[in-house]
This record gives sequence, structure tokens and C-alpha cells, in this order.
Amino acid sequence: MSQSTTNPQRQIHLGAIIQGASGNMSAWRHPDAIADASINVNFVRELAREAENAKFDLLFVADGLHINAKSIPHFLNRFEPLTLLSALAFATTRIGLVGTLSTSYSDPFTVARQFSSLDHLSDGRAGWNVVTSPLEGSAKNFSRDKHPEHALRYRIASEFLDVTKGLWDSWEDDAFVRDKASGVFFDPDKLHVLNHAGEFFSVAGPLNIGRSRQGRPILFQAGASDDGKAVAASHADAIYTRQETIGLAQAFYGDVQKRLAAHGRAAGSLKIFQGISVIVADSAVQAEDQYRETARLVTIENALDYLGRYFDHHDFSQYPLDAPFPDIGELGSNQFRSTTDAIKRNAAERRLTLREVALEAATPRPSFLGTPEQVADGLQAWVEARATDGFIVRGGTPLAFTEFARKVVPILQERGAYRRDYAGTTLREHLGLDYPVNRYALTA
Amino acid sequence: MSQSTTNPQRQIHLGAIIQGASGNMSAWRHPDAIADASINVNFVRELAREAENAKFDLLFVADGLHINAKSIPHFLNRFEPLTLLSALAFATTRIGLVGTLSTSYSDPFTVARQFSSLDHLSDGRAGWNVVTSPLEGSAKNFSRDKHPEHALRYRIASEFLDVTKGLWDSWEDDAFVRDKASGVFFDPDKLHVLNHAGEFFSVAGPLNIGRSRQGRPILFQAGASDDGKAVAASHADAIYTRQETIGLAQAFYGDVQKRLAAHGRAAGSLKIFQGISVIVADSAVQAEDQYRETARLVTIENALDYLGRYFDHHDFSQYPLDAPFPDIGELGSNQFRSTTDAIKRNAAERRLTLREVALEAATPRPSFLGTPEQVADGLQAWVEARATDGFIVRGGTPLAFTEFARKVVPILQERGAYRRDYAGTTLREHLGLDYPVNRYALTA
Repeated sequence: MSQSTTNPQRQIHLGAIIQGASGNMSAWRHPDAIADASINVNFVRELAREAENAKFDLLFVADGLHINAKSIPHFLNRFEPLTLLSALAFATTRIGLVGTLSTSYSDPFTVARQFSSLDHLSDGRAGWNVVTSPLEGSAKNFSRDKHPEHALRYRIASEFLDVTKGLWDSWEDDAFVRDKASGVFFDPDKLHVLNHAGEFFSVAGPLNIGRSRQGRPILFQAGASDDGKAVAASHADAIYTRQETIGLAQAFYGDVQKRLAAHGRAAGSLKIFQGISVIVADSAVQAEDQYRETARLVTIENALDYLGRYFDHHDFSQYPLDAPFPDIGELGSNQFRSTTDAIKRNAAERRLTLREVALEAATPRPSFLGTPEQVADGLQAWVEARATDGFIVRGGTPLAFTEFARKVVPILQERGAYRRDYAGTTLREHLGLDYPVNRYALTA
Repeated sequence: MSQSTTNPQRQIHLGAIIQGASGNMSAWRHPDAIADASINVNFVRELAREAENAKFDLLFVADGLHINAKSIPHFLNRFEPLTLLSALAFATTRIGLVGTLSTSYSDPFTVARQFSSLDHLSDGRAGWNVVTSPLEGSAKNFSRDKHPEHALRYRIASEFLDVTKGLWDSWEDDAFVRDKASGVFFDPDKLHVLNHAGEFFSVAGPLNIGRSRQGRPILFQAGASDDGKAVAASHADAIYTRQETIGLAQAFYGDVQKRLAAHGRAAGSLKIFQGISVIVADSAVQAEDQYRETARLVTIENALDYLGRYFDHHDFSQYPLDAPFPDIGELGSNQFRSTTDAIKRNAAERRLTLREVALEAATPRPSFLGTPEQVADGLQAWVEARATDGFIVRGGTPLAFTEFARKVVPILQERGAYRRDYAGTTLREHLGLDYPVNRYALTA
């Protein structure tokens, strides 16, 4: 593929998801799978190294705060994101470390501290994927009467981020003087007390940890609703989303750019990542076979449970499997709203049966499936079409991620669309984002 | 030193504290000090390796949730314990990892998860030092009107531990079957929902992480008050305390043994650690010189600030320095009660001036100071006298910990009072504690 120097290719950003044996909810049964991957130290360490060898921007850890006996197996027994990423901070040197944490069930002081501490331990590689917790059952694990409704959760999230970012500016970059001769440890003019008193939080500060090499952790936002996009446009450095088609992704991308502009933010100051699943094989047919082999591991009972999770644990086994997808009203709309809307729209438009909807949900066909060249072509097409800035990659089979890292990434590098080595040391530098100047330094 | 096989020496347990440049609040100024030790990745990694090379039982990280401009320098900008210990999990292989976390400002579900995750990441080496947060100012960082008073904090702590231990039993040891052929991931009879509904917490569970190699994290308790000892006797595996003299330590030790018996617990089922400071040199005189060299770094202004911290940030600079320690009533008694009582008692008994009290508090003379043999003798004397089971060691100068690890530990090993290598792999095994059988396995 030839390249024009006057029209350089858009650079692709890549993240690797860490979440159990890759493929689907039953992929742990696959002959190639490490069945206890979600709690296996060697597995996560090897995955991190594989991704770092391929010069990925970041590792990405999802999360959830409620399980029951019908939850997806790799959700039942898994590492907690902050501790996992902190461990990986000392097992890696350059790759970014992004973890999910909910603003609905945590305290901003602790969250600011823990992510900042991860940021220091990794020397500027931390990122926080901000979520508001879709699962209703979470409330019962956190001594709350009820799960806050969708809009309220995002109002809480917005104030939570105001507080967190405020705490991260407690100390200016050069506040710590540490002059042994004079005994001056810090410059008191560069210590700032937040004294936040808002609708949901009252937090005095200062935070007991200073700024990191990248200033503060990178903020990801992962909700695709209007409320989610609004929080992203005002606060986030990156978005994690999943759009089914290139057209939907382009619309999403354009919408976010407009919102950024409305907030006075520069184009490119927020990077969009599409969550994708990949299968790479010597031929497209073999890739398809690999998908089917993994999909077959999911029983229809598993799939109905999986589907039910999006709809407030609704019991779908009460409906005929091969009749049209049932009308279940607004069930689950306070949880995974954008997902449930998409499932219902898709079922109606394509006139799918319950069986088809459940199996598609539980083991979706990877968005990028084929030979290394085909997968590379697909990724480039999305990025060139401004449907996304990058991808958070999940293997569509237990071995697919390694195949992707070893076979697709080199093609992207060959084509000049992906780094051959890290240019910077921080996640912020990998993402090409500006250093966030401390608010008090600005006004001085 | 000869040894009798019929009367073997009591084995000493050792922990290493990680908390800034060792010595005192101003030790960062010492020529040998790494001034930013509290936030320096290489420093903590090297300290951990030094302690592990010396076969220490554990690393110990203290914590606090409130700072202001007068706080001790190494409290201003420091790693958060859980993230720090998680990072060290992948930089060490055998040493225990114990971190401080407050039950007054956190949620049991999150705490149970994060410590359990650390326990899995370290393959059974995690410990939680349970504190109730002495600092009044913490409330203002956590959206609370006021800091709960002492007795209430311990009632909260006790219920918090009930919940945490309950969550840690969510899954029986052999709950995860992971049978690829049948598709059975877990045995539903071995999953248990807690459904705790108490005075302070309502937590349904189950926890989304299973039991670890040591069953569950080790529980340290660090309050020396009656309330603290009561929580320890019912819940803890170990106590971190600081007693000034061998006599006080023996009394403390005996008191705890009685409380254990009253709870039907076996002698030896809870290990007591004395927090100590050490200076090791070629001669006792040199050790004394090293102490004075480090003590001189603390100005009287620093020392008054330090003292004030125990007494609700009271401004001691308003009193004459060389008059008797002033009567300040009950100030601070809701915070560091056992410490403030000891300071006042000591000042009265020894008729100390304010200057003397402040400097002694800010840079106390190490409890164990002298040649390697003298320090080893001292430690053995305390353990043989049943004043303690072990020590959490802090260097009395920036280099003292390394000297201790390299010169005192070999003497203890030579004398048969300390392990030459780890016998087990988990912190529980290092401490010689029984494996905690899951409550549901017991009733089955």
C-alpha cells in the first residue's frame, strides 16, 4: 500500500481488553481456553506483555458490582480493576492501564487517590473508565435502598468528576521543593484546598498525593446515552463505545465532535474507541469456522440468562424460543439503556425470534473477522472514515487476541498506520493528548 | 549461643514498614535520605526486595485520610496502600503485603473485593490493617457532617468486619468446578448469599471473587484502646501496637490472651506485633550519634506541629516552650486516644517541658539501638518474655532498615530464632496461623 506524504494515514489507537477467556460467555469451555482466566495471574500477565510487545496504547479492564448465580462465568470470580492494574504497573513499562470504576458506589476522595496512586506507580500510565453502574442489584451490595435512576446517576457522575479533577489539582506540578538544606518540603502557595460543597458531595481536600508525569489519570467515559455523551464532552479524554456498523459509528463520532465544539474543546482532544471482537485466520472461511466453533459452546439456556441480564434479570425462558422476540415494555431501561434499545430495534427491524436474539447477544459475530489483511483493511477503513480513533480489542476466540497482536498489528505498522514503538512514556502521550495544566497554575 | 532442643526458642516474626524516608518527620532532609521516598517507585521496590531477601513475614503500609499544610511531609504525597501493595505483588514472590484501610470511610463490598483481589494477585499474601481513622478532618473529605466518636467507630468496625468476613465466604473453596465437557462452571450449592442487614450496613452479596490460597486476607487490628482490643479479640489474626516498655508490652500481651480465651480462641491464634524503630551501628556510641544526627533535623516548630496533630491540630506554639507541658483537657481524645493518654501521663510523671514532650514525640529515641548483637538481644528478650510475637520494624535513620535486614536478621537466624527461608508461600503460613475454614463448609 503506497503512502502519500502530503496526506498521511490516520494513526490507529489500540487497547486490549482483559476479561476472562476471550470469545463469549462460554469460551472458558473452549479447548484452547484457560478456564480460570478471570482470576489467573499468569494469564493476565502474559496478555499484558503480549499487548505491550505489540505497542498497544492501553489495557482495559471492565467491571461490575453485582452478580448472581446466572451471571456470566467470568464475572463470578474476577480481579478487581484497580488492584489488577496496579499489579500490572510493575509487570509492564509503557502500556496504559485503564480500569472501570463506578461513580454511583464510591467516594471521590478514595477514587481520586487510588487512580492517582496507580498513575504514580506506573509513572503516568493510568486511566479511569468512568461508569455509573447499570446493574440494579448493585444497590443491595452498598447499603442503598435503591439504584439511582439513569439521569440521576449521570448528575452524580458529573459532580463526582468535578470533585475528582479538583482534588487532582491540589498540588501544582512544582509544589514539592524538598530542599534538604532549608528544610522546605513544599511551597505553601502551590497547595490548594478544594472545599467543594455540592448537591451530592462535600469534599474539602487537599488530596494526599501530587500530580503525576501525565498530570492526572486519563478519563474514559463508557455510556452511549445522551447523558453519557454529555459527561464525556465536558470531562472525558476518551470514550469507549460499541457501534454495530460503520455508519452508526460515524454518526456517533460526528455527534461527539459537535458536543466537543459546543464545550469549546478542540477537535482531537477526545479519542473515541470502538469495542470490537476479532478473529484472525489464514482464510476467511477458517475464521468463520473458528467463530462457529466458539459460538457452539453457548447453550440456549446460557444465552437466555445472558439476555436477561440486560433486562433486569428477566426470565426469558417463559417465552417460546422460535416465536418473535416478545414485547417486554421498558424493562431494564434504567440499566443498559442504549443496549436494550438496540436489541429491541434490531429484533423488530430484522423480525428475529427470541432464540436468534439471545444467541446473537450471547455470542455476537465478531465485527472484524478474516485474514490478517482483511482485518487490517477493516480497521483502517473505520479510522479513515472517521468512524473512530481506535479500537479496544477483544479476541473472538481464546487465541484470537494473540493472533491479532502478532499478525494484524505488523501489517498496520507496515502500512504506516500504527506505531512501531512507543514515542512517549505516558498514556497521555500514546493518545496524543495535551498535558492538562493545573487550574491554579493557569490563574497565577 | 547454645540451644536446647527440649526448650526451643520462640520464633520471631518480622514486618517492615513502608512510610517515607525512615527516621522521623524530617528524615527526608538527611544526607542519606531519598527525599521523595513516600512517592518513589524505586525506593519502595528496593525496600520490598530488601525485606524479602531477609525473609520478613510482611510489608506494612500505614495510612491517613486527611492532611493539611502542617502534616508530616511524607503524609502529604504518598502512595495509596492497596494500589502500592498490588504493584508490589508482582515485584515480590513470598513476602506478605499488609495495608491500612479505614472502616469509617469505606464500603465493605469494595474493601472485601480489593483485599481479596490483592490476595489472589499475590497468591495468598494479603493482609488488611483495620483502622477506624483517628483524624477528625477525614469527615470533610468524605461528605460527612462529623467524624464518628470513638465508641461508634468501633461498633461500625465490628459490623464492617462481620460483613467482610461473610462476603469472603461467598464461595466455598471448591465451588469453581470449571468442567469444560459438561459446561458446569460452578457448583450452585457452594455459592452463598450473605443478605446482611445490620445497624450500619445492608449487603446482599455474593462477592464477585472467590477464596484465595490462604482462604481470606489476614486481618490486622491497630487500635490499642479497649474498643480496639475487643474488635481484635473477636476478629483479628494479628495486632499492630506500640508499647513503650517491655513491662507495658507484657501487660498488653497478657490482656489480649485473656480476651482471646474469653472468645473461645486458642492461644497463638492471634499474633502481636510491636511497632519499633531501630538503629544499628558498629558500636552503641555510633548508634547514639546516628540517632542524634537524625533528631537534629527536626526543628522545634516542626515538633510542635507534629504534637498538635495528635491533639486535633491544637496550636502548641502559644505556650512557653520551657514551662511544664500545658493542661489541654480532653482535646484530641476522640482521635488518637491511647497516644494522647500516654503523652499526657508521660509528661506528668517525668515533669517534662513542652519542648521536651514535642521533640520526644516528633523524634523518639529508637526502642532498639546499638550493635547488631545488642539489637538482636533486645528483640529476643521481648519475645522470650512474651511481650510480643514479633515486630514491625522502621529504620531510625534512612539507612537503618537495610542495616537491620543485613546485620541483625542473620544473627537471629544463627541463633535459631528466625527463619532462614520461607517454609510456606502464604502470609498465613508465615504467621503460623490455621487455615480459616469456610463457614458454610463447616455446617454442611
